Amino acid sequence: MWQQPTSLFTDHYELTMLQASLHSGAGHRRSVFEAFARRLPDGRRYGVVAGTGRILEGLEHFRFGAEQLEFLERNRVVDSRTLEYLEGFRFTGDIFGYAEGDLYFPGSPILIVESTFAEACVLETFILSALNHDSAIASAASRMVAAAGSRPCIEMGSRRTQEESAVAAARAAVIAGFSSTSNLESGQRYGLKTVGTAAHSFTLLHDSEREAFEAQVASMGRDTTLLVDTYDVEQGVRTAVEVAGPELGAVRLDSGDLVEQARWVRTLLDDLGNHNTRILVTSDLDEYAIAALQSAPVDAYGVGTSLVTGSGAPTASMVYKLVSRRNDAGEFVDVAKAAKNKSSVGGRKFALRRLNERGRATAELVGVGERPAGDANDRDLLHQFVDGGELLPGWTGHEGVLRAAQRHHDSVQELPGVARRLQRGEPVVPTEFVDEARQAGAAL
Amino acid sequence: MWQQPTSLFTDHYELTMLQASLHSGAGHRRSVFEAFARRLPDGRRYGVVAGTGRILEGLEHFRFGAEQLEFLERNRVVDSRTLEYLEGFRFTGDIFGYAEGDLYFPGSPILIVESTFAEACVLETFILSALNHDSAIASAASRMVAAAGSRPCIEMGSRRTQEESAVAAARAAVIAGFSSTSNLESGQRYGLKTVGTAAHSFTLLHDSEREAFEAQVASMGRDTTLLVDTYDVEQGVRTAVEVAGPELGAVRLDSGDLVEQARWVRTLLDDLGNHNTRILVTSDLDEYAIAALQSAPVDAYGVGTSLVTGSGAPTASMVYKLVSRRNDAGEFVDVAKAAKNKSSVGGRKFALRRLNERGRATAELVGVGERPAGDANDRDLLHQFVDGGELLPGWTGHEGVLRAAQRHHDSVQELPGVARRLQRGEPVVPTEFVDEARQAGAAL
Repeated sequence: MWQQPTSLFTDHYELTMLQASLHSGAGHRRSVFEAFARRLPDGRRYGVVAGTGRILEGLEHFRFGAEQLEFLERNRVVDSRTLEYLEGFRFTGDIFGYAEGDLYFPGSPILIVESTFAEACVLETFILSALNHDSAIASAASRMVAAAGSRPCIEMGSRRTQEESAVAAARAAVIAGFSSTSNLESGQRYGLKTVGTAAHSFTLLHDSEREAFEAQVASMGRDTTLLVDTYDVEQGVRTAVEVAGPELGAVRLDSGDLVEQARWVRTLLDDLGNHNTRILVTSDLDEYAIAALQSAPVDAYGVGTSLVTGSGAPTASMVYKLVSRRNDAGEFVDVAKAAKNKSSVGGRKFALRRLNERGRATAELVGVGERPAGDANDRDLLHQFVDGGELLPGWTGHEGVLRAAQRHHDSVQELPGVARRLQRGEPVVPTEFVDEARQAGAAL
Repeated sequence: MWQQPTSLFTDHYELTMLQASLHSGAGHRRSVFEAFARRLPDGRRYGVVAGTGRILEGLEHFRFGAEQLEFLERNRVVDSRTLEYLEGFRFTGDIFGYAEGDLYFPGSPILIVESTFAEACVLETFILSALNHDSAIASAASRMVAAAGSRPCIEMGSRRTQEESAVAAARAAVIAGFSSTSNLESGQRYGLKTVGTAAHSFTLLHDSEREAFEAQVASMGRDTTLLVDTYDVEQGVRTAVEVAGPELGAVRLDSGDLVEQARWVRTLLDDLGNHNTRILVTSDLDEYAIAALQSAPVDAYGVGTSLVTGSGAPTASMVYKLVSRRNDAGEFVDVAKAAKNKSSVGGRKFALRRLNERGRATAELVGVGERPAGDANDRDLLHQFVDGGELLPGWTGHEGVLRAAQRHHDSVQELPGVARRLQRGEPVVPTEFVDEARQAGAAL
């Protein structure tokens, strides 16, 4: 998966903080860091946790080898004592968090890292990069899947985002319910199903559309998907049916008014006897366009740009904050920044999703300092991923993706129906902080 | 740079097209593909080309090794004949394009790939991934640098984007004029200057703000940057000055009303005798916030989220189209898709930036089929990067970044002053297609 150390996917200041904290000695204090989002992207009803599996995969490679140390030394990023510390660096703490694919709301403690300050501090940037990107994509993808109902969504956005982001985006989309992706690297790394047939260039390469279709069918079989809008759509459909016959798998429409076009193309296909030929549409779709196409005879949606850019919310605004740490007496002290527009709640968190007797979510309960008592139906949201530096099984690789996709499917089922509305609104359930130790509750 | 093959950063359909074109024989036709943008992001005055150096670096690693071939075979992505072709794959054609860092406008032929269809086709996804992402970031960065005038901008967005995108974003930002980045990996790969000192967690780790500042100064020296807004800003500034004295390098403000705050913090620093202590601001800045801060006594801007998400335009909407290819008689035939909302201009392109006698840009001249005659002042925009599969020197690595940053700086100087306005508007110069062979000109 990772073929090089992930340790320099890190902000410079994580290492200078490390140096200063080793110098003061405070770097060895046991600490609790928490990743959470203060808010959902504007108007979203819920967020989707993604990236956790990639973080755990990357953690194994979060090492400072000769090349990394030489860079840090040459550029005097840190002093020799810190270089020595980094040479032997290996995360030895505990990591807890929401299962990948589960939903989150403002204040949900999505990932909790418990270790020395030194160990948790240097992981900050890498953890946030993965969570912020992947969760943004999964959150957008989940809305598209909801809009598409039973029709499959295919991820096709690789060309619109950085090449490694494309792999992560394909993975996040599949977690959120996409059926497949065009991205081959994600197929190799995560075992995702990859699909694709041809672009306009293939038609233009040949001397006529007919020759192109003949070449494609000869090479890929009659059940392939022919792209019919390079010249004239009606003629394209007729030629496609003439070339491939009644077994033609699908036609793809990539331009024009898709709702109207899908209707008459369906009629034309049926008139030509191609009742089993499907219609795939792919032109700049987002969740709103998908919703508008639900009344049209479309069989599958290919989604590109808007998926990989988070459909208006390309990052999830998650932060990673120190919420508790030991003092010299060995006692944990809860801490939080005081700044008015960036406040957070100190203390180790615990989380339950409150479910009513019909299994519907009604609140996100976040316990401060201890697990809220909870009701019989409540679902515990925190799982342990890493124990004393050892990765626990089941959260990474192909297995992790399958498990996350199932988790996502099940968690969405728990939401009230209003969650599937695309209109802007409040988070579909409120977050309630429960601070039983202090006999106080507060709603965010 | 690349430690694994880049060949699977590719859409599934590139390889199925390859298979079908090898089958029909048309895959061996000499072809011209062109990367261009039909439009700039909504309201932008110019775009910035970035990603070219990364494409050229990745091209060297665009190979199909045993692992890639095994994946393609196992998943029956392509047939055995195509696998054989891929086993020996190496790009042997020519690549031309705009110098990285230069500007682009609608229709500018940013990258031109001339080779067999087969070779050019499989590069599509990787080329577009790099161009679309990196150009989006550089285009946003250039506006921020313009807004900041002589004050330095520091790239700090790694945590808000996927970890590899973060490296590419840091690189693109520096090309567009950012002075430095927080991203260590970009320092290692491209020799970018990296900077950083401490976050709120460092202050919260210690028993008091004073202890934290003392620890930081003891470890990093008095000329460090102290983050003063964890608790109370005024007290933070006073403590910082008490601890570090008149040599304190800078204070960082990361919350609140930055304009007002910068003013009174400057006054306070001056009153305390710290005339040389600078003020760095870093809270959710974009080009508009930077512009609003220009009247405040700020010394540097740290920019995160809005930089790495392209400040509202996270992808550059570039496409890669077959514009010309040989027929069986060996003649080049210009080709273009007919679809109404996605039209393009067929034919190999040439490009000049028309400059007036004062060296100001007045138009983007795009020649179809041949280089436009041009005036004495006009600047040729196309450079050759790859010749018969061989990478030409100077466009990659640290050298490539330095050269691109210089090119960007010089190209921005050529623009009329209106280009620096942040308001939405038309592209600052028009694109004029010149088709002298056909005695016709057309404006886009």
